[in-house]
Amino acid sequence: MKQSVSLREIKKAALRLKNVVYKTPLVYSYSLSEVSGANLYLKLENLQRTGSFKIRGAYNKLYSLRGKANCVVAASAGNHAQGVALAARLLGIKAILVMPEGTPINKVLGVRRYGAEIILYGDTFDDAYSYAKQLEVNHGYVFIHAFDDPEVISGQGTIGLEIVESLKNVEAVLVPVGGGGLISGISVALKERNPGIKVVGVQSSSVPSMFMSVKKGKIVETRGFVQTIADGIAVKRVGEITYNIVKRYVDDIYTVDEDEIEDALLLLTERKRVVVEGAGTVGLAGLLKKKNEFKNKNTVVVISGGNIDINVLARIIERGLVKSGRLLRLVVELPDVPGSLGKLASLLGEVKANIVQIFHDRFSRNIPIDKAIVEITLETKSFNHQEEILKLLRQSGYNPIQKG
Amino acid sequence: MKQSVSLREIKKAALRLKNVVYKTPLVYSYSLSEVSGANLYLKLENLQRTGSFKIRGAYNKLYSLRGKANCVVAASAGNHAQGVALAARLLGIKAILVMPEGTPINKVLGVRRYGAEIILYGDTFDDAYSYAKQLEVNHGYVFIHAFDDPEVISGQGTIGLEIVESLKNVEAVLVPVGGGGLISGISVALKERNPGIKVVGVQSSSVPSMFMSVKKGKIVETRGFVQTIADGIAVKRVGEITYNIVKRYVDDIYTVDEDEIEDALLLLTERKRVVVEGAGTVGLAGLLKKKNEFKNKNTVVVISGGNIDINVLARIIERGLVKSGRLLRLVVELPDVPGSLGKLASLLGEVKANIVQIFHDRFSRNIPIDKAIVEITLETKSFNHQEEILKLLRQSGYNPIQKG
Repeated sequence: MKQSVSLREIKKAALRLKNVVYKTPLVYSYSLSEVSGANLYLKLENLQRTGSFKIRGAYNKLYSLRGKANCVVAASAGNHAQGVALAARLLGIKAILVMPEGTPINKVLGVRRYGAEIILYGDTFDDAYSYAKQLEVNHGYVFIHAFDDPEVISGQGTIGLEIVESLKNVEAVLVPVGGGGLISGISVALKERNPGIKVVGVQSSSVPSMFMSVKKGKIVETRGFVQTIADGIAVKRVGEITYNIVKRYVDDIYTVDEDEIEDALLLLTERKRVVVEGAGTVGLAGLLKKKNEFKNKNTVVVISGGNIDINVLARIIERGLVKSGRLLRLVVELPDVPGSLGKLASLLGEVKANIVQIFHDRFSRNIPIDKAIVEITLETKSFNHQEEILKLLRQSGYNPIQKG
Repeated sequence: MKQSVSLREIKKAALRLKNVVYKTPLVYSYSLSEVSGANLYLKLENLQRTGSFKIRGAYNKLYSLRGKANCVVAASAGNHAQGVALAARLLGIKAILVMPEGTPINKVLGVRRYGAEIILYGDTFDDAYSYAKQLEVNHGYVFIHAFDDPEVISGQGTIGLEIVESLKNVEAVLVPVGGGGLISGISVALKERNPGIKVVGVQSSSVPSMFMSVKKGKIVETRGFVQTIADGIAVKRVGEITYNIVKRYVDDIYTVDEDEIEDALLLLTERKRVVVEGAGTVGLAGLLKKKNEFKNKNTVVVISGGNIDINVLARIIERGLVKSGRLLRLVVELPDVPGSLGKLASLLGEVKANIVQIFHDRFSRNIPIDKAIVEITLETKSFNHQEEILKLLRQSGYNPIQKG
């Protein structure tokens, strides 16, 4: 017997969460409204405690266990782990998090910071999950599911309440979908208040588990392990409760490709000045893909989290700059005599190419003593500008080679 | 005769700005409270329209000119330019922005987007400024000063009102200082409501114009052109109005160094998931430098803007990663035979070094035909981890050279 999720449960969760989580800002975006054609508002759950919405569901679940459970266990290397760990600390419950052995150190530290016990186990998420379920059976710990749990879903649903409380006349809401917990909670909150609000889920096309399930009319599992920038929603099998709520309440599910997610992420970084993780960006990517559906509509995109590895962020920014003609990497050979680097630098100054980084290779044994290899990273204005620079260098007797 | 700034003027500005600018979120930060020891709130003006607070002052000023001015002129390559351009568009006034010729294209486009006319003139800001003043004299356009203007100051002061409205018991506020417009407005709003609130300005030690002026008891100009990450507050001569308000109302001025600003910027990116420009970060840098002054105090740091060049952001992130032992760049020589790169990659896999980027150099004429140079960027866990990697490579017969 599965307990159901209703507006009443979500309101109860809102009371429990009142002094624990932030009512995150819902901000109108002029610039992204212009880009998308919608009247666009962003619900910034990346500014939530722990950096994602997951704390809402985890706290609501653990609150319901007060006095009934001494120790909870969960399997997650991501936002759910941080949510459970912080909720457990706040409620004085012991928490054990099982993570795959290859989990990046910063994710482990992120959870350890909240005082949870961490067990590194197995190669994959499935291994960690099985081990956590085993701990449940062997020790009587309570297993906290990341999405397929009514209390967890009700906690996430409080986002829906906050949206309608702070914005009259919401017409459409786009929500990232992984296992379906977030969109289940939000769609119950919205549809039970106003069935006229359009609720759309967005999933990465790399792991389209909910999209496929809804299409086939039954839960289907997507295949194997996939590398995706939206790792937070890479869930290959959705939940039963969440599947049924989505079937009932969600109007449509879109899928978006990796490069669409990257573009949206870059747009949020550069134009909205927020740091968002890949999974948190798919709502915007979906909106930009289907602009016509939202033209002039009061539209909310849920930005679900901001826990992106800063290394990954740096790479995406760089890739975006290269893609848009604003970064050029060159390798140039120079005579290794005093002044030759200065000559090159002045030449680059003439075409207003800003030098970001120079790597002057003198130490390699294989480079003749009278030559030096210089690698230069340049800030450029456009692809035309890059052509101009390459042309000038060639005319001046250099043989620049464009890199990566 | 200089008009004064008072709480009354600021309240008037707040009414004018009501449906024009955002009441930006004031968010409590658990993580930065832990780091700083203060009860820390961030006023996120990086989420403001145009990405900085400057629209507040510009709009208030231009509003006061309705019906009196057909065309305004300003000199700025930064946030003031965007503020004036947007305010002019909203109020149907023509705006001319004079910028130095070397202004990065993305800044020019940022202003052009709002429909303002742009004149590129001269090598330095001073040249552009003189030219704008000349346009004022020759054509009767109204010159809009970036900070030394009562209407501009009153507009910025609305941030102070919003702070006290959304947070009871504010004890201290830290504000970035360039020419002094922002801190003047905020300090009038705060001190005229509650003189007990401590107001501290923070300036970059590269351009300490307000700090020096207050110290010497008169306005002094700092010297020449300085490269600083906080370019938005690199103002070598503060205003007369602003100087007098600061002398009267501001409790202290701190200065912070470039690396302190970079560290604060990285912290905001990684822990608070917001994108902030250098000038917007000095408030936090100042707080972290003088933690003891704010221990357990309800402290607000004004994050004044987020218009950082995305190129610069990528570089700061990278530098931060290198500094903290999380990025390692190596140059390694390989025999140029099939499989040798694969062998190296497996070796790196053994020590769990994640390859971010590989540059395989075969095309340089100077490398013997039987050798290849590989440049590798690795994600690492710590400096110890880096040592371990270097040791393993050496033991395996490679001669890795650490780069940059």
